[in-house]
Amino acid sequence: MKHHNQALLVEKLPAYLAHLHAEIKNDKGGEVASYIPELAKVDPETFAISVRLMNGSVVSVGNSAAEFSLQSISKPFVYSLALAELGPERVHQSVGVEPTGNSFNSIVELEEKSHLPYNPLINSGAIAISSLIPGQSFEERVEKIRSFLSNCAGRSLSINETIFASEKLTAHRNRAIANLMRYFNVLADPIEESLDIYFKQCSLQLNCEDLATMAATLANNGVNPLSHARILPSSHLQSVLSLMFTCGMYDSAGEWAFNVGIPAKSGVCGGIIGVVPGIMGISVYSPRLDSKGHSVRGLEVFKRMSKDLGLSLFAMGNGENL
Amino acid sequence: MKHHNQALLVEKLPAYLAHLHAEIKNDKGGEVASYIPELAKVDPETFAISVRLMNGSVVSVGNSAAEFSLQSISKPFVYSLALAELGPERVHQSVGVEPTGNSFNSIVELEEKSHLPYNPLINSGAIAISSLIPGQSFEERVEKIRSFLSNCAGRSLSINETIFASEKLTAHRNRAIANLMRYFNVLADPIEESLDIYFKQCSLQLNCEDLATMAATLANNGVNPLSHARILPSSHLQSVLSLMFTCGMYDSAGEWAFNVGIPAKSGVCGGIIGVVPGIMGISVYSPRLDSKGHSVRGLEVFKRMSKDLGLSLFAMGNGENL
Amino acid sequence: MKHHNQALLVEKLPAYLAHLHAEIKNDKGGEVASYIPELAKVDPETFAISVRLMNGSVVSVGNSAAEFSLQSISKPFVYSLALAELGPERVHQSVGVEPTGNSFNSIVELEEKSHLPYNPLINSGAIAISSLIPGQSFEERVEKIRSFLSNCAGRSLSINETIFASEKLTAHRNRAIANLMRYFNVLADPIEESLDIYFKQCSLQLNCEDLATMAATLANNGVNPLSHARILPSSHLQSVLSLMFTCGMYDSAGEWAFNVGIPAKSGVCGGIIGVVPGIMGISVYSPRLDSKGHSVRGLEVFKRMSKDLGLSLFAMGNGENL
Amino acid sequence: MKHHNQALLVEKLPAYLAHLHAEIKNDKGGEVASYIPELAKVDPETFAISVRLMNGSVVSVGNSAAEFSLQSISKPFVYSLALAELGPERVHQSVGVEPTGNSFNSIVELEEKSHLPYNPLINSGAIAISSLIPGQSFEERVEKIRSFLSNCAGRSLSINETIFASEKLTAHRNRAIANLMRYFNVLADPIEESLDIYFKQCSLQLNCEDLATMAATLANNGVNPLSHARILPSSHLQSVLSLMFTCGMYDSAGEWAFNVGIPAKSGVCGGIIGVVPGIMGISVYSPRLDSKGHSVRGLEVFKRMSKDLGLSLFAMGNGENL
Repeated sequence: MKHHNQALLVEKLPAYLAHLHAEIKNDKGGEVASYIPELAKVDPETFAISVRLMNGSVVSVGNSAAEFSLQSISKPFVYSLALAELGPERVHQSVGVEPTGNSFNSIVELEEKSHLPYNPLINSGAIAISSLIPGQSFEERVEKIRSFLSNCAGRSLSINETIFASEKLTAHRNRAIANLMRYFNVLADPIEESLDIYFKQCSLQLNCEDLATMAATLANNGVNPLSHARILPSSHLQSVLSLMFTCGMYDSAGEWAFNVGIPAKSGVCGGIIGVVPGIMGISVYSPRLDSKGHSVRGLEVFKRMSKDLGLSLFAMGNGENL
Repeated sequence: MKHHNQALLVEKLPAYLAHLHAEIKNDKGGEVASYIPELAKVDPETFAISVRLMNGSVVSVGNSAAEFSLQSISKPFVYSLALAELGPERVHQSVGVEPTGNSFNSIVELEEKSHLPYNPLINSGAIAISSLIPGQSFEERVEKIRSFLSNCAGRSLSINETIFASEKLTAHRNRAIANLMRYFNVLADPIEESLDIYFKQCSLQLNCEDLATMAATLANNGVNPLSHARILPSSHLQSVLSLMFTCGMYDSAGEWAFNVGIPAKSGVCGGIIGVVPGIMGISVYSPRLDSKGHSVRGLEVFKRMSKDLGLSLFAMGNGENL
Repeated sequence: MKHHNQALLVEKLPAYLAHLHAEIKNDKGGEVASYIPELAKVDPETFAISVRLMNGSVVSVGNSAAEFSLQSISKPFVYSLALAELGPERVHQSVGVEPTGNSFNSIVELEEKSHLPYNPLINSGAIAISSLIPGQSFEERVEKIRSFLSNCAGRSLSINETIFASEKLTAHRNRAIANLMRYFNVLADPIEESLDIYFKQCSLQLNCEDLATMAATLANNGVNPLSHARILPSSHLQSVLSLMFTCGMYDSAGEWAFNVGIPAKSGVCGGIIGVVPGIMGISVYSPRLDSKGHSVRGLEVFKRMSKDLGLSLFAMGNGENL
Repeated sequence: MKHHNQALLVEKLPAYLAHLHAEIKNDKGGEVASYIPELAKVDPETFAISVRLMNGSVVSVGNSAAEFSLQSISKPFVYSLALAELGPERVHQSVGVEPTGNSFNSIVELEEKSHLPYNPLINSGAIAISSLIPGQSFEERVEKIRSFLSNCAGRSLSINETIFASEKLTAHRNRAIANLMRYFNVLADPIEESLDIYFKQCSLQLNCEDLATMAATLANNGVNPLSHARILPSSHLQSVLSLMFTCGMYDSAGEWAFNVGIPAKSGVCGGIIGVVPGIMGISVYSPRLDSKGHSVRGLEVFKRMSKDLGLSLFAMGNGENL
């Protein structure tokens, strides 16, 4: 993996991804998320794969311009912003660094002793992180997040207010989690504002190629490979990537590490991003989900790419050839 | 990390490790394991660090010749042997690949639905793996393990029969786990023989430098850097290392990934090994354990080395300079 | 127990209770509930015992006129009201009849499969029950509860609005539970109104003698022994008393059944009521609580009375003599 | 309930039970236990109901002479014997008095803090109790149990050695539990002997009418209503009956208390006994079990009898007329 040739990748990826896309497109398994009405309105057939390389070039197949909301894929990026704004010490007074073994929206997701959320990539932890983002007003805090994530994507992203309204209306479980955190003084008043910030970040609208750029910014040690702007201090990457590796795929973490082996994050929008440090950012978008909330085709794309391209952090040079 | 210069490491490691050893030696925290009487007899002050590089050279500080029993550090190696003998498909009919979030000897360590052990690096999974090692007789099966682990260490290791007898006598919890697996038909009769094979592998006697060689064999893609013999097919390394990464440190997996970031395995003997692919095998031996069963000084050594040398898989070149 | 002579009890109880009160008064163990500020303002030394017999007579010792808020002791009575208003079939579409083994305010108190609250006497179940009480308006629904509980007590009780305001302000955990029930469609919108009804019933103000009358109404098969009014249809008593027996003391149910053996309900106000069918209603008030939320002196009073008077449902005539 | 007329019961029960038997016989639901091969050999159609009254008379319908093994119904009786032999203080150093909320053979059935079995009526607790029965030899200890249970049944019962051998051979789960208790020093060596004593008591052979007599001995305050011999000190009945009430039906305890409301014990043989203090001992035998291990027809018989005869401890005179 370490010696993946970028020029060679640019040359060979288009045919490889086209082939992969054609094969996996036939998999109609899974169900589109319906827990908020707006999410259920997407076209279930949409299927895109994008790879952004470190030299800034991108290879995409399928409907890579179809837009959707960011959902949980926002979590590692807002965590990155919190690290940049407040430093790791302050941030980890509010959230831990342990995987949970539970599903993404478990109510039992506070540590038994500390009552802190287990990590920043489950709902409780992400809400706690969102509540930490500083600012003079709600609007300023939301804008700080929107702006940071736009920088990661390399273009200005906007919030889908219809999605936001739908999230807010039906967020009974997240509201339960927030009240429980308030009970344990992990979250401060007003919790409804913290929830709103979280719903706003989940409602950012973008396409598959934007996602690949965001992943590539993490793969490129915090520098956006398109804009060449440093988005994140190099020193925070280890924190972000290690948490994505152990906690990014919820209770599929073990199988993902075993079969794919790269830092990743999945969202109920049907997107999955993967970070291959120094090599590429990968994104897949296909909205039909398995029972754990992961894109069915997305999982298959990552398994195949990891094996075919030897992307696993533990691959040690196996399978490097396309 | 990717460009760690082996020659530079050989030159600088002796002074670095001597300094680290001197500092951490003052930490008297933790308790020597006493769950079997023989384990309690070791000198709690013993403290050794060894690093074996890919060119075969070794740097050791402290009592690196002090011998102890292998205990749970045997687990990834016997799992490797099982992969080599039976192939991954057969092996993973008997054990899963998921971390548990529980402690190393939890009785609740069978998956709720399949009733399989969660992974090969907890006691239930390791006993299931040991039961799979084929052979005409008990003696032949034990010899196969002893011989394989000796090849990893680069010298002939022997079983400490006093430790074995002590393990066998007091193994009430492991016997409970084995009977529960027998109940679910995960383990076949005679379960006492499977337990004995497991106790034998735990009782292999070696020193800290041997451990470093074993770790280095994994770091060197399955080839012992001392003997240059291929011990393990290259294709199995990804399985072994990814499981060590997610499951090797039990319920400290998240914190380990966050702070250290390399595949590892800990044992109640007081040893910890770490694998830095393509760079080095690291071992620490110091028998005083924390409440989770990890060597107190061992944890500290790994945290410091990972930070100082930039060893984390997610470090991307930070901290490379000694 | 079955032949407890009421006349004899009237004669002997005053001296017996006075002696008991004097002895147990010395126990200063436990802590006054502080989860809402108002509760923490009571005099921790207050200690009253009242026994209401089936002939309407009452025996009280200590500060039996000291007032406090009803808290969880409201639960079996509002459950009784729901049975009377809606019938058992409708009520048990919303709550189960199983003890939980968890503490009184566990967040994990919804059944795994049905997502219903385990029973009407834990917070989730009580909130679900309160939400079922019918009425044209919030005020009418609250009045229905106030009026029903007043009838049980034999005098008009009023709601302590300071307590209510304090409950409402700090009810993060109950609000978490309500949102989780809303998520599972166990609770309908508006959940804040259901919570307010629940807080109102918890805020009813009364004294120890009132509590004894309420317990005696249950002991007297649903007829208030003071007013001789039938409050509850006889056919619902079995439901109310069996649930008080198995679920009324939260996770102390087994020990309570073993040592005391009568239907009971405890509240964080420091009150405990016990129902000896056909014989008496007992109440104790002493605000210092053990770690499970039960009045420390209250528990001791009940243990002693059950043993001395042979009150257990399983006593079969033992210990009947004072 | 308290005024149930024994003469009236003798007169009316035969027709009532015949009618009940005829109706419930049509229920073919459930599966015969197969966890030991010998248990699977019974005729699934067998169905008997017996009621033994306090005057010694018995009313039986169906195959009341069909023999089967006692299984878990032995638990409250061997617990009674332990109380008689050692006193409650010693006995409850080894087992608790709390229901578990888990199924009858849960492996997680030791209390988290004390590591004691939750109560004497689950497998772990029953094995701990059996291990306490004193005697000079294994044979003497088994004979003490056989003899005590025979006295409860009013005739000499013998052990079915084929059942015993089958139990012993396939007891992987009970052996797991015993080893776990050995680990926590709740059980002393040799644990295999304690298990054998437990398997022997489970293998006692008897018929439905014997069971009714055993239940009636408990209902009659410890005096066998046939032989008029006192089997159990009156002072221990409260302990036995309260534990049967809260723990005798495993995780169906709440529903049983709510719908039936009498102390009871169920066994995988397909038997259930119920104790109506001062009135009657009831037994049902029908080997098809529901998913929780209770006789399907047995549950239905008890629900119907409790309602029709007003047997619940909380019934307060309702439904007394046949």
